[in-house]
Amino acid sequence: MLALGCELDPDQEVVRTRLEDYFLRPPSHAPCTACGTVMTVHIVERMASVIPAFNSSMRSDRNTYVGKRFVHVKNPYLDSMDEDILYHLDLGTKTHNLPAMFGDVKFVCVGRSPNRMKAFALFMHKELGLEEAEEDIKDICAGTDRYCMYKTGPTFSFSQRHGMGIPSISVMLHELIKLLHHAQCCDVTIIRIGTSGGIGIAPGTVVITDTAVDSFFKPRFEQVILDNIVTRSTELHKELSEELFNCSKEIPNFRTLIGHTMCTYDFYEGQGRLDGALCSFSREKKLAYLKRAYKAGVRNIEMESTVLAAMCGLCGLKAAVVCVTLLDRLDCDQINLPHDVLLEYQQWPQLLISNFITRRLGLCD
Amino acid sequence: MLALGCELDPDQEVVRTRLEDYFLRPPSHAPCTACGTVMTVHIVERMASVIPAFNSSMRSDRNTYVGKRFVHVKNPYLDSMDEDILYHLDLGTKTHNLPAMFGDVKFVCVGRSPNRMKAFALFMHKELGLEEAEEDIKDICAGTDRYCMYKTGPTFSFSQRHGMGIPSISVMLHELIKLLHHAQCCDVTIIRIGTSGGIGIAPGTVVITDTAVDSFFKPRFEQVILDNIVTRSTELHKELSEELFNCSKEIPNFRTLIGHTMCTYDFYEGQGRLDGALCSFSREKKLAYLKRAYKAGVRNIEMESTVLAAMCGLCGLKAAVVCVTLLDRLDCDQINLPHDVLLEYQQWPQLLISNFITRRLGLCD
Repeated sequence: MLALGCELDPDQEVVRTRLEDYFLRPPSHAPCTACGTVMTVHIVERMASVIPAFNSSMRSDRNTYVGKRFVHVKNPYLDSMDEDILYHLDLGTKTHNLPAMFGDVKFVCVGRSPNRMKAFALFMHKELGLEEAEEDIKDICAGTDRYCMYKTGPTFSFSQRHGMGIPSISVMLHELIKLLHHAQCCDVTIIRIGTSGGIGIAPGTVVITDTAVDSFFKPRFEQVILDNIVTRSTELHKELSEELFNCSKEIPNFRTLIGHTMCTYDFYEGQGRLDGALCSFSREKKLAYLKRAYKAGVRNIEMESTVLAAMCGLCGLKAAVVCVTLLDRLDCDQINLPHDVLLEYQQWPQLLISNFITRRLGLCD
Repeated sequence: MLALGCELDPDQEVVRTRLEDYFLRPPSHAPCTACGTVMTVHIVERMASVIPAFNSSMRSDRNTYVGKRFVHVKNPYLDSMDEDILYHLDLGTKTHNLPAMFGDVKFVCVGRSPNRMKAFALFMHKELGLEEAEEDIKDICAGTDRYCMYKTGPTFSFSQRHGMGIPSISVMLHELIKLLHHAQCCDVTIIRIGTSGGIGIAPGTVVITDTAVDSFFKPRFEQVILDNIVTRSTELHKELSEELFNCSKEIPNFRTLIGHTMCTYDFYEGQGRLDGALCSFSREKKLAYLKRAYKAGVRNIEMESTVLAAMCGLCGLKAAVVCVTLLDRLDCDQINLPHDVLLEYQQWPQLLISNFITRRLGLCD
C-alpha cells in the first residue's frame, strides 16, 4: 500500500480510490511500502491554485476519478516547481490551462511525419463524427517548429517533425507524460504508428510489437543517468497488442502479425545496411545477423520502440507500437517502392488505429 | 600508397594526383598498403555514364582536381550499386544531377531549426553578394518533410527539422556524406551550429568544441555495428576550431571559448535534469556530476557532437561544432529566457560562421 490513499496495482499504475483525502492534504510524494518506489501524489488543489477556473470543475467532477488510472510521473521534484515549462512543446503550466485543453485525452498517437499525423487527425475527426469544423483542427505546437500536435475529441496526434530515434522521442515523451499528468488525464493509451524494415516478411505487413528488443535482441533499454547505466524493461502491453490484432482481423486484406521489434540507434551501420557512407562488414555477415534476429523473434526494425516501452511502462501508460514494413531486409537495403505504394502502406497503421479507437468508443457498426 | 594513384594523407583524406588514370580505368576500391583501410576510388566515367552532361564538364575541368581533398566514403559496396537513393533527403543518383547541383559546395552548416537555417541561408546570400534573387533560394528537400536544405553559392545550410540526437543526425550524415561524394565535392568544411546547456559559464557564451565527449567524459563514440560495439575517436579539427576562435575575436561583444562538449542520448535524465517525467537522483548528485564534468573540461552539453566528430573524421571532412549556451546548468534546468534574448543568443553562432565563411572566401574588409 502507498501512503496517502494510493494503491499500486499489478501493472504498477496508480489507482486513486480515496479522493476526498486529496483535497484536505498538501501535495506530496510517498514511497510504496512494498517496492520503495517514490510515487508523486498530485493533488488537484495545487493545479487549482494556478488555474482557478479548473478548481471548481474538478471538485464537482470528483466522482469520475474513482477507479481511474492516472498518468503519473516519477519525479519528487516536479511538485515543488512553481512553473513547469514544456520547452520543446512550447507549453507551460502557467501560460496554458492544460486540464481544460487536454483533460479529456484518452488516445495519443505518435508518428514521425507532420503531414501524416495531420491527415490522421482529419481522418479521426471524420470517423468520430465530431461537430467542430475541420479548419479548426490546428497545430497546437504552432509556436515551435520542433513538434506538432492535433487534437480531435479524445484523440491526440503527435508528430516529432521527423526527428528520428530514441533521443528525439525521449524528449517528447518526457514532456508529453508531464503534459498528460498536469492535465489530469486518466486511462490513456499511447500508440506509436510508423514505418519499419521487415525481416523475413512481405513488405506492407503491419507488425504489432509484443516486446521491443535492442541490437543484441535483449528486451531492455539502457538509460544513462548521470554516469550510471540503468536497464529498463521494454515489454509492451499484452492485452492492448492482442486487442489491436483482433481489430486487424476485421479489416479486409490486412496483413498483420505480433512479433518482436528491434530498436537501433542508427539506420545504416546499426541495422546492417550495405549502402551507408560507412560499411565495414560483408553481405554474408549482414545476412547472418538479420537471420539471427529473425530466429530470436524479431520481425521488424525501427528506432524508437525500446524507450517508448520503457518510459510508458514506468509511467502507467498502456503503450503499443504498430509499424508497417516497407521492405524485407533479407532481400534489400534501399526503400524503392513506387510513391503510391509507399503512401498506401503508410496508411495501414492509421487504418488499424482508427478502427481500434472507434471500437473502443463504441462507434463501430 | 594506395593503388590507382591515390595517396593517403596524414589526416586520412584521399588526395587524387594522377587524374588521367581515372578516365582509363574502371571504378574500383583498393586497400591502403600501410593501414589496410579499403578506400573507394570513384571514377568520373562512372558518374558520366549516368549523367552524360557531367562527363565533358568534368574532363575539361580536370586540372582543378590536382591536390584537392575529396569527400570519401568507406564502403566498398557503394560503387557496385546501379543507383543510390538518398531516401531521407529525397534525392538519388539517377534522378538528380548531383555534381551539377552540389559540386561547388565548400561549406555545410547543419542546424536544427528549419526556420533558423533558412534565415541563415538568406543572411549568407546577402553577405556573399550573390546575384540570384532571394526568392530563388528554395528548400531542395521540399519533397520530404524530414529535412530541409538551402544552397547559396558554395554554402549549404542543412536542417534536421528539429529531430534531436545522435540517430537523427547520423542518418543525415550518412546521406549528406554520400551526396557530397557523389557530387565530387572537395575541400568541404562542415559546421554544426546550435544551442546547448552551459556548465559554469554565462548564458549566451558560444562554445567551440575541441573534443566531443560522452556521458562518462570520454572522447569516444560507441557505434553498434551488427551486434558489435566499435569505438570511434571524437576529436574535432584543431586548426578549424582555432580559426573560428580567431574569427570570433573580431566580432564586438562576442563571448566565446574553446572547450569540451558533452554529448548525451537524452535531454532529461541523461543531462541530470530534475524536471523530467522521471528523476531518480538528488539535486546534490546532479550538481556533483556536473561539477565533475566541468573539472574534466566540459563547458557545454548537447546531443549530436560525438557522432558528427566520429563520422566526419572518418570521411575526410573538416568538422566543427559551434553552440551557444542558453542556461548555466549549475544554476537551473529549465530554459526560461525571454523570447527576444533567446532569439539573440541563437544568432551568435550564425554570426560567427558567416564571418568565418566570408573571410575564407576573401570577401571580408
